[in-house]
Amino acid sequence: MNGYAQNKDDVLKRLRRVEGQVRGIERMVESDKYCIDVLTQVSAATKALESVALSLLADHVSHCVAEAAAEGGPVAVQKIREANEAIARLVRS
Amino acid sequence: MNGYAQNKDDVLKRLRRVEGQVRGIERMVESDKYCIDVLTQVSAATKALESVALSLLADHVSHCVAEAAAEGGPVAVQKIREANEAIARLVRS
Amino acid sequence: MNGYAQNKDDVLKRLRRVEGQVRGIERMVESDKYCIDVLTQVSAATKALESVALSLLADHVSHCVAEAAAEGGPVAVQKIREANEAIARLVRS
Amino acid sequence: MNGYAQNKDDVLKRLRRVEGQVRGIERMVESDKYCIDVLTQVSAATKALESVALSLLADHVSHCVAEAAAEGGPVAVQKIREANEAIARLVRS
Repeated sequence: MNGYAQNKDDVLKRLRRVEGQVRGIERMVESDKYCIDVLTQVSAATKALESVALSLLADHVSHCVAEAAAEGGPVAVQKIREANEAIARLVRS
Repeated sequence: MNGYAQNKDDVLKRLRRVEGQVRGIERMVESDKYCIDVLTQVSAATKALESVALSLLADHVSHCVAEAAAEGGPVAVQKIREANEAIARLVRS
Repeated sequence: MNGYAQNKDDVLKRLRRVEGQVRGIERMVESDKYCIDVLTQVSAATKALESVALSLLADHVSHCVAEAAAEGGPVAVQKIREANEAIARLVRS
Repeated sequence: MNGYAQNKDDVLKRLRRVEGQVRGIERMVESDKYCIDVLTQVSAATKALESVALSLLADHVSHCVAEAAAEGGPVAVQKIREANEAIARLVRS
């Protein structure tokens, strides 16, 4: 089971919206829209992607990490290291 | 003329690649891929979008802002304020 | 016990280094150093602070969250929610 | 003349406040305060530093870059490249 299993539809809906935003930005560039207007949409799409990531991460910590920690042992250690690396990638992206 | 006119093809190619990355993430979610693997791809797409934004912004400053500043007057003041607001949005996204 | 108990000296050393960086930036501003050179140091200090945050967060997840999850119950739920909120604040800062 | 000349006092005041925040975080760590409370203050200090950076950058674009662009020639080209690199460092930090 994935951490996001219960929110799968919501995650997919948000990702499709981001895909639509990116396609919208392509159309703006194709029709030579003003740089600042393009940039505003790129910032919005970046924020939306970041928000999907935070939602996936929260589900992962709440389910996968919490269950592994409850079991303990080397799997717990590995899941926690993996989660911390994902958090660092996200903070630095 | 837009700031990105000379790089339009490159900007479009990068945006289409981001669109493909987002679609790839949707397929990962649809087939219940592991949270951390999904997150790694979301971080990569976020970084790619940020990189498109930096490229658009650099072109904008190099062309639109520089030309407005060379002309001076209220248009220059407005272009500079607008650019600074776009930079702030990007840093905060 | 805090999550960072074992790394306390290291965390303190990094924070003192950041404090020194910020004081160095103040001196640069006082002596009218060039904007771009000041900005380079501000970016370095920001990255250093972010890195302290990631270290504190990793320790917190590895110890406090993992222990709470092992015990389960409402405390676990609350610790996990709290950790997810801290992650979100960090990603958005 | 620096871009921040007119805002020098304000920039210094904000930097001293950040320095105070970092010192406050050191005291929290010294007295073993709870990880999440420490993290909240680290996020606040990071946001404050980022905000100083945006203010310095806005002044730099408004003055140094705008003046160089008005003069044109290789100095303008170099100032613009330099500003774009500083923006990229800031977005990525």
